[in-house]
Amino acid sequence: MAAWEKNVRKTIPYTPGEQPDRPNMIKLNTNENPYPPAPGVTKALQELDADRLRRYPDPAARVLVQALADYYGVTNQQVFVGVGSDDVLAMSFLTFFNSEKPILFPDITYSFYDVWAELFRIPYERPPLDSEFKIRTKDYLRECGGIVIPNPNAPTGIEKNLAELEEMIAGNPEVIVIIDEAYIDFGGTSALSLLPKYENLLVVQTFSKSRSLAGMRIGYAIGNERLIGYLNEAKYSFNSYTMNGAALAAGTEAIKDDAYFRETLQKIINTREWTKQELHRLGFSFLDSKSNFIFASHPKCPAEELFQALKQADIYVRFFNKPRINNYLRISIGTEQEMGALIRFLEHYLGENL
Amino acid sequence: MAAWEKNVRKTIPYTPGEQPDRPNMIKLNTNENPYPPAPGVTKALQELDADRLRRYPDPAARVLVQALADYYGVTNQQVFVGVGSDDVLAMSFLTFFNSEKPILFPDITYSFYDVWAELFRIPYERPPLDSEFKIRTKDYLRECGGIVIPNPNAPTGIEKNLAELEEMIAGNPEVIVIIDEAYIDFGGTSALSLLPKYENLLVVQTFSKSRSLAGMRIGYAIGNERLIGYLNEAKYSFNSYTMNGAALAAGTEAIKDDAYFRETLQKIINTREWTKQELHRLGFSFLDSKSNFIFASHPKCPAEELFQALKQADIYVRFFNKPRINNYLRISIGTEQEMGALIRFLEHYLGENL
Repeated sequence: MAAWEKNVRKTIPYTPGEQPDRPNMIKLNTNENPYPPAPGVTKALQELDADRLRRYPDPAARVLVQALADYYGVTNQQVFVGVGSDDVLAMSFLTFFNSEKPILFPDITYSFYDVWAELFRIPYERPPLDSEFKIRTKDYLRECGGIVIPNPNAPTGIEKNLAELEEMIAGNPEVIVIIDEAYIDFGGTSALSLLPKYENLLVVQTFSKSRSLAGMRIGYAIGNERLIGYLNEAKYSFNSYTMNGAALAAGTEAIKDDAYFRETLQKIINTREWTKQELHRLGFSFLDSKSNFIFASHPKCPAEELFQALKQADIYVRFFNKPRINNYLRISIGTEQEMGALIRFLEHYLGENL
Repeated sequence: MAAWEKNVRKTIPYTPGEQPDRPNMIKLNTNENPYPPAPGVTKALQELDADRLRRYPDPAARVLVQALADYYGVTNQQVFVGVGSDDVLAMSFLTFFNSEKPILFPDITYSFYDVWAELFRIPYERPPLDSEFKIRTKDYLRECGGIVIPNPNAPTGIEKNLAELEEMIAGNPEVIVIIDEAYIDFGGTSALSLLPKYENLLVVQTFSKSRSLAGMRIGYAIGNERLIGYLNEAKYSFNSYTMNGAALAAGTEAIKDDAYFRETLQKIINTREWTKQELHRLGFSFLDSKSNFIFASHPKCPAEELFQALKQADIYVRFFNKPRINNYLRISIGTEQEMGALIRFLEHYLGENL
């Protein structure tokens, strides 16, 4: 080890899903939307004035913040935007989790939470999900440094009902409770309605899934004005200009086209429910997903074997080689055609190999 | 103060320059490039496939990293990219400055350095520039937790010669020395040539100034592969996907068009030298800038008065109300026409008011 290495912050980074890019592959491994972004997004990008790019973008990202504020019926001062919800969550951890008490999040959940906690040296504990992979409310009614609950949870897809979430938020007035709603638009009930009652609540959402803009990196948080003020001050202490001109234009157009948004959501939800029926028919067991993925296990065929077999057929799903969940596959919901191909492959494979 | 506020990280954020957007204004306050980005950038953005944006971008930003590696004659593993050099510098502070000894940077310099140090609770000391606003090498030959030297320095514009920089880097093998070369392309000599000799050296540059892409938010660091490896691990512990599809496409095209790059640089340098002559004629004193701005003071008219008078005329320059530099204006180099208008205004104003 060189002398200079002793002061380096050593981290164990998050491992994103593979991003293969092969013609005709079926990519169901990173919960992307199978439909393109709203038509207005294409138009806005084509009309982007390259000359304008020599100037810094608006550091307050007002056009996008305003579109979000209008859409959700909150004030501009209640909205924070960042480079994907990962950026928003990372800044929130840095800003709000400075207690010496541990923050709490489930043992099985988005695997970035413990990475951020390690990066920022935030103590944390991970109350285990129950035997049905559900979050137990009582585990979160205790002294702590903060709480992060993904709702629906990933990779399980299970939604926690609003009354139980409210119990956690009301029970922890001294700390910030972050509800990470990356997948809420696919049929869940948002905690946004609780904002007027609880000033310790921060709701985080993203354009990456329901708005088909994973490639543009846009996430946001909504909370009370004081909370968002602190988050903005931390952002202005890290990077004043996070949202580039293209992201501002694309995000704003995506929010404005609500009809397109609802139409694609409904298609995905319909395909998800069809896929559930088919998986059931093939003998899979799975949890009741309210997200754009299904977390499924087959009683006779190990998940890792299926994962590899699917990959050979250029169908990519996600397999987590981790305790408790290493016999499950997380399957993103693609188009009807893609899910049809997946089901046909599984039917054939299970028929031949069982 | 609410109970939840006690664990909030309180910060004093960086204050970016104003971003007014008025027709016919002359904007010389944030060191933006007066010329549009390379023609290939416009084309790449127009051809951006909106459908592709539903997918996550390449987390390793390979297309852009490769273009930079080719341009600078280094390996892909020696290049780190981020959301502007602010993102790159912030991640570098977080990754490399974890000593209990103070990091060192000048008292008069880019005002984000102390903001990052405060945010990440890094101890720091600021050796004062000498009476001619020069960085004294000997102040940096001492035990410390790391060093950041902007070269040329901002807002002074003064370049430090490579031999003296090398003395600092060689004299501090136990810590990382960051040379922040945001303005190096405007006539300075880069420290990149020292990379093969010093593994504790990190060179940071940006697309915001010399490549006319402030609005796209692209910065980069070049260093040895181990150093860049640590930086990437920290990045993957914060936000896997920082560079969106538009930034990747625009940045790659900007790097590829070297002829356009050199042509716009030369125009800016020529205009800078012309502006120096004119400011001299009007009685201003200023430092020998090697950047795209001039830091100037008039013996008979206070900088703040001039700043306000210029603003009334829709000419924006930067005034820092800080000790030692509160009688200086930082004037970005615009087009010939813009600088002509500035000089005419100053000539008229000083003639009438002195």
